[in-house]
Amino acid sequence: MVSKSQIKLIRSLAQKKYRLKNGMFIVEGEKSVREFLASRFQLEKLYTTKNRFGTPDSHTVLVAEEDLKKISQLKTPQSVLAIFKIPRQEVFRPQGLVVALDGVRDPGNLGTIIRLCDWFGIKNLICSPDTADAFNPKVVQASMGSLTRVKIVYGDLAEFIENAYNLPVFGAFMDGENIYQKTLPAEGILVMGNEANGISKKIEKLITQRIGIPRFGDINQTESLNVATATAILLSEFKRR
Amino acid sequence: MVSKSQIKLIRSLAQKKYRLKNGMFIVEGEKSVREFLASRFQLEKLYTTKNRFGTPDSHTVLVAEEDLKKISQLKTPQSVLAIFKIPRQEVFRPQGLVVALDGVRDPGNLGTIIRLCDWFGIKNLICSPDTADAFNPKVVQASMGSLTRVKIVYGDLAEFIENAYNLPVFGAFMDGENIYQKTLPAEGILVMGNEANGISKKIEKLITQRIGIPRFGDINQTESLNVATATAILLSEFKRR
Repeated sequence: MVSKSQIKLIRSLAQKKYRLKNGMFIVEGEKSVREFLASRFQLEKLYTTKNRFGTPDSHTVLVAEEDLKKISQLKTPQSVLAIFKIPRQEVFRPQGLVVALDGVRDPGNLGTIIRLCDWFGIKNLICSPDTADAFNPKVVQASMGSLTRVKIVYGDLAEFIENAYNLPVFGAFMDGENIYQKTLPAEGILVMGNEANGISKKIEKLITQRIGIPRFGDINQTESLNVATATAILLSEFKRR
Repeated sequence: MVSKSQIKLIRSLAQKKYRLKNGMFIVEGEKSVREFLASRFQLEKLYTTKNRFGTPDSHTVLVAEEDLKKISQLKTPQSVLAIFKIPRQEVFRPQGLVVALDGVRDPGNLGTIIRLCDWFGIKNLICSPDTADAFNPKVVQASMGSLTRVKIVYGDLAEFIENAYNLPVFGAFMDGENIYQKTLPAEGILVMGNEANGISKKIEKLITQRIGIPRFGDINQTESLNVATATAILLSEFKRR
């Protein structure tokens, strides 16, 4: 059984305001929940139709499928939903290549970028305050457990960049230099901008190298690339050498 | 004014069954609609709150915003929704690099892949019958007008491949050969598989070169890449040389 007040609390965690107020976020699906359980994240409560997670009784609630439907953010709820504590924000210490997001608003794009960082061994993702929230259920869903392995810090990007010991700062632009012809370093910051407006004026001033992905289709017509697919291609270029 | 029967018809086009029955599909948003108007696609009807499209009167319906809300597939309807005719399927004639999708089910992934094909100058996309429908409103939305420039053919992939004049057939696999170390030709077929199960057994037999993207993160934990981001990286590799 899930009480009405629990249902209300869990549902409220879809909103950033209530995630911050309660210091908790939702993880759904057996695979993701297991990855969070095995990570540094602290479990608050686990709701499941079949208890096979080995979590302490005090933290585990056996529920019926229809209860899970009431608290799930998914159209087709899986067999488990867990609430974890939002960890205290860590201090940003640049290491290797750092990805910086300047106003990436779409939760699906952020989730995909977190997954890409995990794949390409990027340890640090820094995000401007107007970037989507990493603990948004859609981001957690799209990042498929990668959130447990990539350190994400929110704050003033300009400040992060200025404190980053003179690392080269790469920015993705439509008219940037051909990435295929550049020699890319192992250390640096790669800035990706907002879906509609790109990198903000304030951050643009701090970019030391403007890079871009050449277009092979009809140059007058082809749309820009989506920010997540552009990040995929750029990270691949940084890492392939 | 939009009549009740028109509303019913337009709403029904969200479903593949009714798109096929009526031979029509929906395009929303000014930018996309303009690209379709300037393309080989034939307009059936255009519903708009501000007529500035120069379409014939017989094909144009001025509507109130609340009417547009009734027929729109979007949470926030834009100022125009157009119905275009689904063209007769073209014959597949391989040219350059061809992308083949073997059961890519998610409309967002298909839309992103169409947009990538457009960016990288891929002229032909061939899709197995169980791949998402290219005229699904979510695909049209995600592909941002690229549908007007990429030729998409549905059918038996095995037959397409067998009729493709002995082109090399590349398949993306988790354990495929390191793509960064391969010499890639300008002509060939690149097969991308289903989100959960990858390339089907039947098609796997026809693959001449198994390729993959090396993983730089923790090898025991990192999830696989999403099919759209993997396609982005592979197309970039084929085209950069």
